[in-house]
Amino acid sequence: MKFLAEINVMPLKEILDPQGKAITGSMKNLGLSEIQNVRIGKHISLEVEAQNEIIAKEKVNQACKQLLANLIMESYNFELKTI
Amino acid sequence: MKFLAEINVMPLKEILDPQGKAITGSMKNLGLSEIQNVRIGKHISLEVEAQNEIIAKEKVNQACKQLLANLIMESYNFELKTI
Repeated sequence: MKFLAEINVMPLKEILDPQGKAITGSMKNLGLSEIQNVRIGKHISLEVEAQNEIIAKEKVNQACKQLLANLIMESYNFELKTI
Repeated sequence: MKFLAEINVMPLKEILDPQGKAITGSMKNLGLSEIQNVRIGKHISLEVEAQNEIIAKEKVNQACKQLLANLIMESYNFELKTI
């Protein structure tokens, strides 16, 4: 079976996000001062071939931990869909 | 009312994603050759203050079009939640 994983990798809440802070400031200049607390992370989509959803989840977790997310500074979550 | 927007900005399908290609290659080296077609974009979370959901959506669309996404090379989608 083939699964599509949609992964979000975000900086931890405790960690300053300078890119997000800069964007929050720019919103004001665009006349969008209603927008606050911008935080920027990565969105990763990938396809994984696996026998079932449990194995697919395990593979995605492994990919996140070993390559896609730096768990010292980032957290991740993902959703799996059958394709 | 306050809304939380979760925005995904992804490179268009027609456009080569070199970062995604590199990650796809690295997956093989990690023993995760089941993982294919990696594409990398941005995930942005932000808070928006608005009278109702329609106005909030409009604000987020404006922010995406003017600042967060480059519509020549990227597409975006988002979800709004009340907080």
